[in-house]
Amino acid sequence: MPDTIYVINPQSTLATTQGIDRACEPLRMAGGPLIECVTLADGPPSIQSERDADSVAAPLARLVADAERRVAAFVVACFGDPGLHAAREATRKPVLGVTESGFLAALMLGHRVGVIGMLPALIPRHSRSIRAMGIGERYAGERAVSLNIAHAPEEARTLHRMIEVARELREQDRADALVMGCVGFAQYRERIERAVGIPVVEPTQAAIALAIGRVRLGW
Amino acid sequence: MPDTIYVINPQSTLATTQGIDRACEPLRMAGGPLIECVTLADGPPSIQSERDADSVAAPLARLVADAERRVAAFVVACFGDPGLHAAREATRKPVLGVTESGFLAALMLGHRVGVIGMLPALIPRHSRSIRAMGIGERYAGERAVSLNIAHAPEEARTLHRMIEVARELREQDRADALVMGCVGFAQYRERIERAVGIPVVEPTQAAIALAIGRVRLGW
Amino acid sequence: MPDTIYVINPQSTLATTQGIDRACEPLRMAGGPLIECVTLADGPPSIQSERDADSVAAPLARLVADAERRVAAFVVACFGDPGLHAAREATRKPVLGVTESGFLAALMLGHRVGVIGMLPALIPRHSRSIRAMGIGERYAGERAVSLNIAHAPEEARTLHRMIEVARELREQDRADALVMGCVGFAQYRERIERAVGIPVVEPTQAAIALAIGRVRLGW
Amino acid sequence: MPDTIYVINPQSTLATTQGIDRACEPLRMAGGPLIECVTLADGPPSIQSERDADSVAAPLARLVADAERRVAAFVVACFGDPGLHAAREATRKPVLGVTESGFLAALMLGHRVGVIGMLPALIPRHSRSIRAMGIGERYAGERAVSLNIAHAPEEARTLHRMIEVARELREQDRADALVMGCVGFAQYRERIERAVGIPVVEPTQAAIALAIGRVRLGW
Amino acid sequence: MPDTIYVINPQSTLATTQGIDRACEPLRMAGGPLIECVTLADGPPSIQSERDADSVAAPLARLVADAERRVAAFVVACFGDPGLHAAREATRKPVLGVTESGFLAALMLGHRVGVIGMLPALIPRHSRSIRAMGIGERYAGERAVSLNIAHAPEEARTLHRMIEVARELREQDRADALVMGCVGFAQYRERIERAVGIPVVEPTQAAIALAIGRVRLGW
Amino acid sequence: MPDTIYVINPQSTLATTQGIDRACEPLRMAGGPLIECVTLADGPPSIQSERDADSVAAPLARLVADAERRVAAFVVACFGDPGLHAAREATRKPVLGVTESGFLAALMLGHRVGVIGMLPALIPRHSRSIRAMGIGERYAGERAVSLNIAHAPEEARTLHRMIEVARELREQDRADALVMGCVGFAQYRERIERAVGIPVVEPTQAAIALAIGRVRLGW
Repeated sequence: MPDTIYVINPQSTLATTQGIDRACEPLRMAGGPLIECVTLADGPPSIQSERDADSVAAPLARLVADAERRVAAFVVACFGDPGLHAAREATRKPVLGVTESGFLAALMLGHRVGVIGMLPALIPRHSRSIRAMGIGERYAGERAVSLNIAHAPEEARTLHRMIEVARELREQDRADALVMGCVGFAQYRERIERAVGIPVVEPTQAAIALAIGRVRLGW
Repeated sequence: MPDTIYVINPQSTLATTQGIDRACEPLRMAGGPLIECVTLADGPPSIQSERDADSVAAPLARLVADAERRVAAFVVACFGDPGLHAAREATRKPVLGVTESGFLAALMLGHRVGVIGMLPALIPRHSRSIRAMGIGERYAGERAVSLNIAHAPEEARTLHRMIEVARELREQDRADALVMGCVGFAQYRERIERAVGIPVVEPTQAAIALAIGRVRLGW
Repeated sequence: MPDTIYVINPQSTLATTQGIDRACEPLRMAGGPLIECVTLADGPPSIQSERDADSVAAPLARLVADAERRVAAFVVACFGDPGLHAAREATRKPVLGVTESGFLAALMLGHRVGVIGMLPALIPRHSRSIRAMGIGERYAGERAVSLNIAHAPEEARTLHRMIEVARELREQDRADALVMGCVGFAQYRERIERAVGIPVVEPTQAAIALAIGRVRLGW
Repeated sequence: MPDTIYVINPQSTLATTQGIDRACEPLRMAGGPLIECVTLADGPPSIQSERDADSVAAPLARLVADAERRVAAFVVACFGDPGLHAAREATRKPVLGVTESGFLAALMLGHRVGVIGMLPALIPRHSRSIRAMGIGERYAGERAVSLNIAHAPEEARTLHRMIEVARELREQDRADALVMGCVGFAQYRERIERAVGIPVVEPTQAAIALAIGRVRLGW
Repeated sequence: MPDTIYVINPQSTLATTQGIDRACEPLRMAGGPLIECVTLADGPPSIQSERDADSVAAPLARLVADAERRVAAFVVACFGDPGLHAAREATRKPVLGVTESGFLAALMLGHRVGVIGMLPALIPRHSRSIRAMGIGERYAGERAVSLNIAHAPEEARTLHRMIEVARELREQDRADALVMGCVGFAQYRERIERAVGIPVVEPTQAAIALAIGRVRLGW
Repeated sequence: MPDTIYVINPQSTLATTQGIDRACEPLRMAGGPLIECVTLADGPPSIQSERDADSVAAPLARLVADAERRVAAFVVACFGDPGLHAAREATRKPVLGVTESGFLAALMLGHRVGVIGMLPALIPRHSRSIRAMGIGERYAGERAVSLNIAHAPEEARTLHRMIEVARELREQDRADALVMGCVGFAQYRERIERAVGIPVVEPTQAAIALAIGRVRLGW
C-alpha cells in the first residue's frame, strides 16, 4: 500500500479543506504518496487570533497521535503553523508546517521574501515564526489584504487585493519572491505571479512537495 | 487605591505560586504597586511540553480579560511565556512575559546570555522565543538540569544541578550572564551567582521589576 | 536607611538636572529607593560633540568613586552614555546608562526602535553604542530635531519638532517604538506618544526603573 | 509525455553518474517526472579545485541550452554548485544546485547545519555559497573526510571516515543536522544518520525532490 | 630590484587596461613597488555574464602561475572578482580582488556601502560576493547604470548616469559611502563624489593601495 | 613637498613611540608620504583603563587641530582607538584608528579574526569597537597576554605569551587570522605568524598602509 501524507486543516471550515484539496491535485502522482486532506473538527471555524491559533494544539496533537500508524507524514495546513510543535511531540513521523515550508521554498526563488497576509492581527505571529528560524535577514515583511476571507470569499475582490499587496511588497519592501500567507487560494497563485512578475509560492503546495521528498527518502 | 500587578502562575500547582510569591517580596514597596500572585486553576499542574504550553492560552486570556478593570499590569510567570500573545490580545494593559523580561534584564549584565533550563523538551520552545526577538546573536544557549522538579523538589539536589549547569554554560558556551529558565526558585539565585561568579537573573523578578516601571510611567 | 539611586547629570547645566529630577517623580515610592539627582560640576554645560562626551569620563569616575559608599546604584543621565564605562571601572555598584536602558525598555514595546535625537553630530556616537550591544538588527535609526535645545528651550517649537521627527521615524524608517535621545524632556513623552500612536520611552525614566529593580534584587 | 528532470554530473567520471542515478531511484514514481542522469563529457574527471569548478561553466551552459526544449528542470549534481549561475543564464527552466537544495532541506531538520565534506581545499568555496545565501547564522561549518574518493572508493574506509567527521560536527561544532558535501554516496546516508543520531541529508536527493515539486507546480 | 604588483585585466579589451593603468598613476611612488598592468589575452572582450566571469578562471590561473616568480602581488582588476579564487590556488603570493578591496576600503568611509554597477545582469553575482564576506549587514545594494559601456564609452552620458545612480543609492538605499562597480573609470571618481557629497571608492585603486601595504609588510 | 602622515602615540611613553616608529620603516618609500611619529605629551604613560582611554580625547583633538594644516592624514596609534572620534571632529583630514584598520586588513586574510590583547580590562572596550562596526559576525574574540608590558618589556616572555594566546585563539576560538591588539611590537609579528601558521596583522602598520592609499588617492 502506498504511503499517505495527511494534510490537516486545523480550521473546521470544510470549504477551506476543499480549497486545500484542490491545491494538492498537481502533486498527486501515480506511484507517489497518497495525499489525504482532513478537517480538524474541533478547530475553530477560522483562525483569526493568537488565541485561536493556540487552541488548536490539543485536538491537533490528538488527531496526529491517532493517525500516526497509518500515515507517513503530516502537513499542518494553516499559515502561522498553529499547533505545529505540539503535533511534532505527538509523533515520530515528519510534521511539516506551511509557513516554514513556504518560506524555505521561496528562499530558492529570490533573496528577499515577502508574505501576502490575510489579517493584520496575525502578522506578529508570522514574523515571530520566521525570525525564530534564524533567517530574518531574508524576510521582507508581511502585508495583509485585510479582507475577512473566511466569511466573504468574493473571488474577484480577493484576487485584486492580493495583487495590490504583492505589488507593495515588491515596490516598497523590495521583495523579489513572495509566499501566500494563507491556505485554500492556490488557484490565485499563478495569476498573482504573472501580475507582479516575481515568483509566488503557495505554502500548502510547498509543504506537500517537501513531504513527498521526505516520505520517499526516509528523512 | 494603589495600582495592582497581577502575577499569574499558569500552572495549577499552588506550591509554585507560593514560590513566585516569595520571589515578589523584595519588590513590594509601601508606596509602590500591589503585587498579587494568582494561580490559573484551569492550567496543567506543570507545563512540560509544547502542548501543555499551548493549552494555557484560552483560560489565561479569560482570566486576563476578567481581571483587566482592576489590574494595572500582568506578568505571565512561566518560562517559555505560554499564552503570552493570547493574553496580550485580551487586554490593553501591559502583559509581560518572564522569558522576554529575564532575557532583556540579562542583556544589561553580560554579553552572552545562557539559560539554566529544567527540561530538555522545552529548550526548542525557549530558543524560538529568544531568536524571534532578534537578539539570537547574544544567546549562548540553554542547558537543562533534567530534574522533574514539579514532582521532586529536593532542595539540595536541585541547587547542585543548577550550579553544574550554570558552570557548563559559562565554560562551554561562554555565557557571561545567566537567566534561570524556571520560576519559583528565586531563593537559589544568589547562591548560583556566587558559585559561578557571573550574574544570574531570576526571570519573574525581572518581569515584575519591569512591570513596576511600566505601571508608574504609564507605558 | 533606604537605598539611594544617584542620578548624575554629566552636563553642568542646572536646568537640565531639574528636568531630570522632575522625570524621577513617578518613580519615587514610599518604601522604595531614594532617587537623588546631582550635577557634575566639572562637566561641560552641554555635551555637543564626541570630545565633550569623552571629557566627562574623569570627573564622573571621581564623583562615582567618592559617592560609592552611600549609594546603591548610579544612573548616568545623558544620552550617548558619556563616561559610562569609566564610571563602571570606578565602583562595584551598578552603573546604568540611559541609552542602553532606554533601548532595552523599548525592545519590549516594539520590534524596530527609532531614536528622536537632538543634534546630528551625535548620531554616529549613539549608533555605535547601539550596534555595539549586538542588537543593531532592531535599530531603525536616529533622526535629530536639530535644535540647539540647551540654549533655546522654547517649549512649543521643541515639542513640535520632536513630533515631526517621531513621524518620520515611524513612516520612513518603519520604527514601531521610539526612545527619546535626550534627557530632561520627560514632560513631552506622553504627548509625542499620543501624536504618533506608537510607544515612546523616556530614557532616564527607563534607567531609573531598571535601577530600582537592581537595587531591590541585588543584581 | 511526462516531464523530465535532467540531473547533470559536471564531472566526466561515469561511476559518479551511476552513483547519482542510484540516488534518484526512490524519487522515481510511475506518474511523476522522468529523472534522467547525464554526464558532462567536457567536465574534468573530478572537481578538486576552484579552477576545476569554474571550468565547468561553459560546457554546462551549452548542455543546458541544448537540452532546454525537452527538459522541465535541471539539477547540477556536484557539491559546490559549479557552473550553477552560468547554467541559470542559459535557460528559463529551473536549475537547482545541490548545495543550495541540500542546505535548505536540512534547515527543516535541525537548527545548526554541518557539512560532511570531501576535500579541505573546497571548504572555502562551499562556505562562500552558504554565506552568500544569507543563512550563515545556521551554518555549523564543514569538515572534510580528506580521502581522495574519486580515485580510491574503498567503501568501508570512506563510510568510517564520514561517520567520524559527522561525529565531530555534532560534538565540536554543535551541528544538529548534516548535509553530505558530496554526490554519489547516497547509499551511506542512512548508516551515517543511524551512527550519529541526527538527521543527514543527501544533497542530490534533496535537489531532485525540490525539482519534482517545482515541475509539478510550475514554479 | 623593486617589487612588482601585477594588475591583470581579465577582459581582453586594451582600452580597459589603459584606463586601469591611468588609475594606478597616483599609487606609483619612487621607492615603492612597480605597478604593471597586463591584459588577459584569452579573456572575453568584456565580462557581461556569469559564464563570461567563470570562463576567466583557467587562463587567469595560468597567467598567475607563469608570472609568480617575478611578481610580489596580483590584483584581478574586474568587478565581481572573476577567477579570483582559482588565481589564489595558483600562487602563494597575495592575489587581491577589486570587489573585496573596494568594499573593505569603503567600510572605513561610511556605514552603509552602495555599489554603482554597470549591468543589471551582474548584480546578483556581486551581491553573492559581498554577502559571502559576512558583511552583508553593511551592504546598501547595487544599482546599475545599464549602459553597454564596453561598446559605447561616451563620456558625458556615462558620467551623468553614474551620478544619477549614485544619488539613488544615497537617497533610496541610504548609502553613505559608494564603490564604483566597474574598472577603468577612475577619472570619474572625484566628480561623482563631489556631485553626491558622500565618499566614492574606485576599486582598482583600493586594491592596489592594499597590495602596496601587503608587499611592503610581507603579509 | 611630500605629504605627511602623522602617527600619534596617545600614550606619553617615548619607548612606545620608538617602537611605533620602527614599525613604520617598511612603509617609508622615497616618493611616498613622509611618516612622522609623535608622542602625545599630555597622554597617560600607558592606557590601561576606560578612563585612561577617554582622557586622551581633549589633548589629542588639540594636537590634531594644531597640526592639520601641515598634515595629510593622521593615525591614532593605540589599540582601542582612544580619542579617535574626537580627533575626527577636529579636522577634515582622514584620521585612521588602528583597531578599525587592523581589523579591516585582517578581513582580507581570514574569515574569523581574533585579537591578541594585552590587558583583560580593555577587552570589553575593543569588543564594543569591533561590534559597533557591524562586523561582529567575523570576530572570533580577544584573549589577553596579561603582562604589564608598559613596565616590564622582557622580550622573550612577551613573545612567548603572545604565541600562546595566538594558539588559543586559533584552537579554541577558531580564528584563522589575527590582529595584534597592541602597538609597538611589530618586531614580533612575523615570529607569531610563523609559530601559529595563520596570518597576523600589526595594526599600526595596517593603518599606515591604508593612510598612504588615502593620501595618494584623495579620499
